[in-house]
Amino acid sequence: VTRVVSLNPATNTERALEIDETSPQDVAVLCARASSIAAQYGAWPLSRRAEMLRTMAAELEADAASLVEVAMEETSLPRARLEGELRRTAYQLRFFADVVVEGSFLQASIDHATNSPMGPLADLRRMKTPLGPVAVFGSSNFPFAFSVPGGDTVSALAAGCPVVIKAHPAHPATSQATFDALERGAKIAGAPEGVLGLVFGFDSGVALVDDPSIRAVGFTGSGPVGKALWARANARPTPIPFFGELGAANPLVVTAAAAAERAETIGAGVAGSMTLGVGQFCTKPGIVLVPNGEHGDALVEALVGALRELHEMTMLAPGIARHFRDGATSIAESAGTRRLVGGDAEVGSQARAQLFEVSAITFVEPSSRPLREECFGPLAVVVRYDDNEQIRQALDIIDPSLTFSVFAAADDPDATWLIALGASKAGRVTFNEYPTGVGVSWSMQHGGPWPSTTSPATTSVGASGIERWLRPITFQGIPMDLLPEALKDDNPLGIPQRIDGNYPG
Amino acid sequence: VTRVVSLNPATNTERALEIDETSPQDVAVLCARASSIAAQYGAWPLSRRAEMLRTMAAELEADAASLVEVAMEETSLPRARLEGELRRTAYQLRFFADVVVEGSFLQASIDHATNSPMGPLADLRRMKTPLGPVAVFGSSNFPFAFSVPGGDTVSALAAGCPVVIKAHPAHPATSQATFDALERGAKIAGAPEGVLGLVFGFDSGVALVDDPSIRAVGFTGSGPVGKALWARANARPTPIPFFGELGAANPLVVTAAAAAERAETIGAGVAGSMTLGVGQFCTKPGIVLVPNGEHGDALVEALVGALRELHEMTMLAPGIARHFRDGATSIAESAGTRRLVGGDAEVGSQARAQLFEVSAITFVEPSSRPLREECFGPLAVVVRYDDNEQIRQALDIIDPSLTFSVFAAADDPDATWLIALGASKAGRVTFNEYPTGVGVSWSMQHGGPWPSTTSPATTSVGASGIERWLRPITFQGIPMDLLPEALKDDNPLGIPQRIDGNYPG
Repeated sequence: VTRVVSLNPATNTERALEIDETSPQDVAVLCARASSIAAQYGAWPLSRRAEMLRTMAAELEADAASLVEVAMEETSLPRARLEGELRRTAYQLRFFADVVVEGSFLQASIDHATNSPMGPLADLRRMKTPLGPVAVFGSSNFPFAFSVPGGDTVSALAAGCPVVIKAHPAHPATSQATFDALERGAKIAGAPEGVLGLVFGFDSGVALVDDPSIRAVGFTGSGPVGKALWARANARPTPIPFFGELGAANPLVVTAAAAAERAETIGAGVAGSMTLGVGQFCTKPGIVLVPNGEHGDALVEALVGALRELHEMTMLAPGIARHFRDGATSIAESAGTRRLVGGDAEVGSQARAQLFEVSAITFVEPSSRPLREECFGPLAVVVRYDDNEQIRQALDIIDPSLTFSVFAAADDPDATWLIALGASKAGRVTFNEYPTGVGVSWSMQHGGPWPSTTSPATTSVGASGIERWLRPITFQGIPMDLLPEALKDDNPLGIPQRIDGNYPG
Repeated sequence: VTRVVSLNPATNTERALEIDETSPQDVAVLCARASSIAAQYGAWPLSRRAEMLRTMAAELEADAASLVEVAMEETSLPRARLEGELRRTAYQLRFFADVVVEGSFLQASIDHATNSPMGPLADLRRMKTPLGPVAVFGSSNFPFAFSVPGGDTVSALAAGCPVVIKAHPAHPATSQATFDALERGAKIAGAPEGVLGLVFGFDSGVALVDDPSIRAVGFTGSGPVGKALWARANARPTPIPFFGELGAANPLVVTAAAAAERAETIGAGVAGSMTLGVGQFCTKPGIVLVPNGEHGDALVEALVGALRELHEMTMLAPGIARHFRDGATSIAESAGTRRLVGGDAEVGSQARAQLFEVSAITFVEPSSRPLREECFGPLAVVVRYDDNEQIRQALDIIDPSLTFSVFAAADDPDATWLIALGASKAGRVTFNEYPTGVGVSWSMQHGGPWPSTTSPATTSVGASGIERWLRPITFQGIPMDLLPEALKDDNPLGIPQRIDGNYPG
């Protein structure tokens, strides 16, 4: 039996927790328990499901002070950030409670029996139903909002699925403490044992993806790990959907007109965005396209100046910092690349902001591959271009991304084509706004084409995230009293129902 | 160069067509052409896209007489069936024209900038956009409705995606003739060259799945082929979604009360359903659970009687008939299985209806695996049960399916749990109705859990089929005049828009 260890990245000190890594046998027990109550929980009235999510939010808030303390110790993220993240996480629970009660996620549709040009059509009624137990892999960088009590867990519970969560090794104590709050909420709401489970340790995660009771996986993390687990989910005797959000080197394009208009403002803004949360955001702008010439020079100068004012920062874990340094070294050693900021040796979990510059011509060279990959941390590559053709070539060679940002001037002739190009290569296109910061709302999309996401048709943030944990069923010719509530003619749930093809409402 | 051969399964005579199998080079050209016009076609106004689909329907109808002739020759399906199928196919085109214009498939959602409990939220606007070129593999058994002009092609065109179609080798002349009608429709509507493509030959299908321009695949066909292509789609450098509808041995359960109430009617009805279209329906009921005892005996007697009245039938192709005979032989040789109908040797594409009987106890034995697998053709396995526990065990061991049918009496105590069980194991649950026949409508679901479908969260028939070919994008902070029409505040398209979280309408 291996004890779970919690590491303080600022002091580089470890402490063993009163938690053992979960054995494959215990993973199987948790998954079987989730499976045994999946139908029961999935059949809960929507209002009761919503009430449970609200109770969980209250329980998290009740523990706010101690949760922030333990997360500070494990992540070195500042207090204000963690307090805000916890508020956001509680908000997200209540938001999904509203999404559940509103009920449009069920996509209820009723076609009464009729004669169509094809002949008689039966009474057909379609709705979404929960998939069953879901595995969630929390991420390192948001110990609340994308971890145990985060968007994947909450949207799956909202969909009516039990959840078994793999705790991230960078914050095991925070994982356990937030899980305890969720469990209290579940208990108060009268949820069956098994609606929530938590596992620790690398092997337990693999066992979770393999477990026959698990019907889908939500994952936020690195590309290599995400792709390996995605392949594993596909290699099961019964493959399951794997919703992986794997990050990206998100491009940010500054047009010539924008640079001429407000070089200093944009330069300072990019510095803030790329170093927010020590650059540990999957939406961090990693590739910044800036025109050659004096305006571009002024922008880069402002960016460099803002970065130089920053102190050394503590990353989430020594392994993440090591990976960051390796990435920076690969970029520094890439031919034709100039380092503008950074270069000091760091130790432990410490990191310094890093900025590199390269010409658009060099950037598209095969040897420049390291410059085009995500480097998780406070680092960006500035690509200097001469003309739109060089912008196109630079954007053409980089992988699709989660976000794509356009900074343009008023009536900028380059705005239209850049927005269209962004829409073809990313899940979210921002205009004169920085991509970091992913609001929980109805219209959020967090997920772009492969390889930024393994399932680009879905989102891991916002109301539509609930769609990942459902599949449609049609009931044909079922008597009214045997139909699910959502599909009855008198609509007892008061949800949107499409009737005979007419859009509800 | 290999000539494409058309085979008449009734006479077993071949004729070489004036068509060559498509070389990998030509596949690449067609895909590149589709890719080159994908953005242009995807940006068409919805009304124009709808008009093209309606024009295609009219062109198909204009050729109805000759299309039915060529399809009869290649498939041996009767005239009335093919005429009906062509009507359904034209109806499907017009139905999707309506779906396009209605616009709810775009899932337009507008969140105006606001202050949330998490702090300020940007102006966020989300909608679905077309994925790009789609590959479609037509099926053998519906030469119109699930082939070149079928649901996959039409829903992809409706979504705004160019389509390259792999013709099914069982009806190449029909494929070419229907393609010609679609192409005329596209031309009349002013579509760019490349919105449609057609390829022939096994290798061309593989090349299609591999082609980097292809962004998704729609497939209807057998499990082994579908799974192989699914794996191939996942093995690409950039994996793509593969929407495969692979068929199933769909269960049909007759409760004790239903057998007592109307044994003869149900027996005759099952005979009709399992032999409709020579049993060549992916929704054919393949496993029929019937109670032991006199009522069950009467049901089976009626079923046997109805099947014995049927003549020899011609299947779609000699290979399909051979596969059918092999499946029947495996079942016949399975220990404890009784053959009730069939047994004559067939030749060429000829087949006779086949019925087998087995006890529920034998059915769940490991050695009875052949009885639980789909056998494409006019064949069913009757499983005789003593009690509900035996029903549960029999249903537990079979794979999930496209459909699940319950035949019950009025106020039947077994109706509720059987419907719930069906919903957990299939995409469509029918009640006192036969599963064959898949109407094109808003509420149709055609697709169940793996392995009946590779993507159980989607459907290949009905309005929701359009969702397969789209992915969401969020536009953040984009000025009104640069937004897509679907996301503008004044809603020029008149489509449903969710505004600030409020359900549209």
